[in-house]
Amino acid sequence: MPPNFWRSLPVVSKSAARRNPVLARRSFLGLGAALTGTFALDAARAETAEISPPADAPWSQSLGAGVVDRPYGTPAETEAGVIRRNVPWLTAGTESSISFSPLQDLNGIITPNGLFFERYHAGRPDVDPEQHRLMIHGLVERPLVLTMKDILRFPSVSRIHFIECPANGGMEWRAAQLNSLQFTHGMVSCAEWTGVKLSTLLEEVGLKKEAKWVMVEGADGAHMNRSLPLEKCLDDCLIVYAQNGEALRPEQGYPLRLVVPGWEGNVSVKWLRRIKVGDQPWFSREETSKYTDLMADGTSRGFTWLIDAKSVITFPCPEKPLSGPGLYEIRGLAWTGNGKVKAVHVSTDGGINWQVAQLHEPILSKALTRFSIPWRWDGKPALLESRVIDETGYVQPTIVDLRKQRGTNSVYHNNSIQTWQVKPDGSVFDVQIG
Amino acid sequence: MPPNFWRSLPVVSKSAARRNPVLARRSFLGLGAALTGTFALDAARAETAEISPPADAPWSQSLGAGVVDRPYGTPAETEAGVIRRNVPWLTAGTESSISFSPLQDLNGIITPNGLFFERYHAGRPDVDPEQHRLMIHGLVERPLVLTMKDILRFPSVSRIHFIECPANGGMEWRAAQLNSLQFTHGMVSCAEWTGVKLSTLLEEVGLKKEAKWVMVEGADGAHMNRSLPLEKCLDDCLIVYAQNGEALRPEQGYPLRLVVPGWEGNVSVKWLRRIKVGDQPWFSREETSKYTDLMADGTSRGFTWLIDAKSVITFPCPEKPLSGPGLYEIRGLAWTGNGKVKAVHVSTDGGINWQVAQLHEPILSKALTRFSIPWRWDGKPALLESRVIDETGYVQPTIVDLRKQRGTNSVYHNNSIQTWQVKPDGSVFDVQIG
Repeated sequence: MPPNFWRSLPVVSKSAARRNPVLARRSFLGLGAALTGTFALDAARAETAEISPPADAPWSQSLGAGVVDRPYGTPAETEAGVIRRNVPWLTAGTESSISFSPLQDLNGIITPNGLFFERYHAGRPDVDPEQHRLMIHGLVERPLVLTMKDILRFPSVSRIHFIECPANGGMEWRAAQLNSLQFTHGMVSCAEWTGVKLSTLLEEVGLKKEAKWVMVEGADGAHMNRSLPLEKCLDDCLIVYAQNGEALRPEQGYPLRLVVPGWEGNVSVKWLRRIKVGDQPWFSREETSKYTDLMADGTSRGFTWLIDAKSVITFPCPEKPLSGPGLYEIRGLAWTGNGKVKAVHVSTDGGINWQVAQLHEPILSKALTRFSIPWRWDGKPALLESRVIDETGYVQPTIVDLRKQRGTNSVYHNNSIQTWQVKPDGSVFDVQIG
Repeated sequence: MPPNFWRSLPVVSKSAARRNPVLARRSFLGLGAALTGTFALDAARAETAEISPPADAPWSQSLGAGVVDRPYGTPAETEAGVIRRNVPWLTAGTESSISFSPLQDLNGIITPNGLFFERYHAGRPDVDPEQHRLMIHGLVERPLVLTMKDILRFPSVSRIHFIECPANGGMEWRAAQLNSLQFTHGMVSCAEWTGVKLSTLLEEVGLKKEAKWVMVEGADGAHMNRSLPLEKCLDDCLIVYAQNGEALRPEQGYPLRLVVPGWEGNVSVKWLRRIKVGDQPWFSREETSKYTDLMADGTSRGFTWLIDAKSVITFPCPEKPLSGPGLYEIRGLAWTGNGKVKAVHVSTDGGINWQVAQLHEPILSKALTRFSIPWRWDGKPALLESRVIDETGYVQPTIVDLRKQRGTNSVYHNNSIQTWQVKPDGSVFDVQIG
């Protein structure tokens, strides 16, 4: 970025003057001309102008609450609008349903535990960790039933990974209908997970030579279960008891869950109680009637676990419009189940021209990655898009291209480019083009 | 680690048999002999033995709560003991005091926002972000008063950094007196911070050529302020509005704080309201009567901002004793204000012999870093220690060596090696040796 690139922010300057009593007073004192153009105030005048500190607010004039007033902290009351939300018409009830993370209010790559998206199949069980057990059996040499205390004894690893429900964006296969970043993309979150490698536990029980598949089952009322190929289990799957430093939240599988990095969230079974090793998949309910992709010709794609590369612009977005022409930082998130994000391109004209965005460190495998790019908005209509390329060379497709491949029968695995339409008043809308 | 290294865990096996009804039944059925020795059960018998799933608990037989039952989530009720704590005798009240993070219960490198340690000088102000202002003035070309909305417009960066109060371990300069990991080391936490580089804002206002120092001031009742050399401000300081993805918590400076990576926590001023540029330090209360190191000869070290390299074993510790002889994973945290951790050594005999621990990825600059090493405890008394070497070659000192340099008059900057004494019953005590 060239020096002083951000110095000449006309809109920041105007909005600051509008809202800020001190700047407004300075403007009243004769500095107004400089404020209307750029942020570069007349240096000679600024030297003689008096800038006073803002008046002391009540909270600056008294003692506040002491330490351990809240032994476990909570957000500020003024952040009460930053919450998970559901779409009431999407499911018949809330027990087999989803809620969405407020991506429009989030920063960086870590999703705080209180805002991680939810997906339940029979509601959220409140599991007693003292009574919880993990059984490992089937085609193994030494079947085992482990307590939580046993599991904590094994070598621990921590990894930062996203989890995305494959139905994220599933309501947008046929048309743009949810005018909201939270609802089009909020079924993805990212956390630092700590637990034991699944390979360590499979090593402990000893695999028989016929072993090829693994069934994982939850302790929820649905006993939600899925089949996984043994290769993935021995690669990077984690049996997780902690999230972002502390114990898993009940919403995320307390006291124990599976995390299958880079694969559709449904296989990262929560409240994990059983691992069975076999020689073929189980064809469970959630991998036959659900979590398969019904194609245009009536056949289904099954076991489509991988989360293909995806990205979305998080600012601006329908929830966070622009406040007028000027210089902005377009911000967004990118991720891929294939490993690392290699590049993100941003277009402001609906995909005709593209620019390379800046990727923010750390760029971790199978984790959310932040990107940004400066943009001077001239106040005219614009079509904002981002497209990610991952380390395998995979390029995020348009919705038009994706429909050609897959039709529109399925709700799963819509990783298409999101288009945000910016109108002259700064408002932002979810649209599909082409 | 050699194959099957963890297979032969005698203590896991014994404890599992003791607590686990299914394993106990299998033992009762004739497999007991194998259980008493190692985890390697008799393979021939295991093939014929029936392993049944644990009986369904009540929470596995019913619908649980639905999504958005808690739009902002909270920890499980059974985790109610994982909280910040203070030492009541340490300060006269709680408004100018500290609380400690429960490091004994934390995993990975991210401290969840609810458990980040607290340090107040006049209690915790509840600041209205709409009314909050940041003034930047002094030896600058274009003094400014910014609203939160203005600050959100600037280019954003996210960084994972620890913050440590330099008084962490300050009660242990003369003797080991706090028999607790939480109280000896819990004034350090680590988070992903998002905000604007301070250099970006200083660029915006334009520094005059005489500029050499910067004063930062909080909006709390103490108007806590510190002086910082301009070089550090232009290097890596951040004006932060988000922590672990969401808005800062009130405890950590909502809506705006400074983060000075790798330097003593006191300079990372919370509820930041003013930045003044000058040509010399201000010698404020908190850098003269406090946060200076009184030496044995009566002189003081001042402006001792840097956090030197430090490490501590987090398992076992006084709060987390051993349950009997056997194979364990010793776990710990290391950090340095100099940049990255290069190596951690672990001793089980009070520093006579050392082994190289495994460092866990990601190893980030000025962030907490996890280490671990397997240890087979024979049930005899042991003295556990860790010592970190950072990328500059700095080696964490013993308390004996540190006292030789600094005496015992100060409470600040005790980064000495922690010794945990393990007794034959598995209990763990805070001791000092040599």
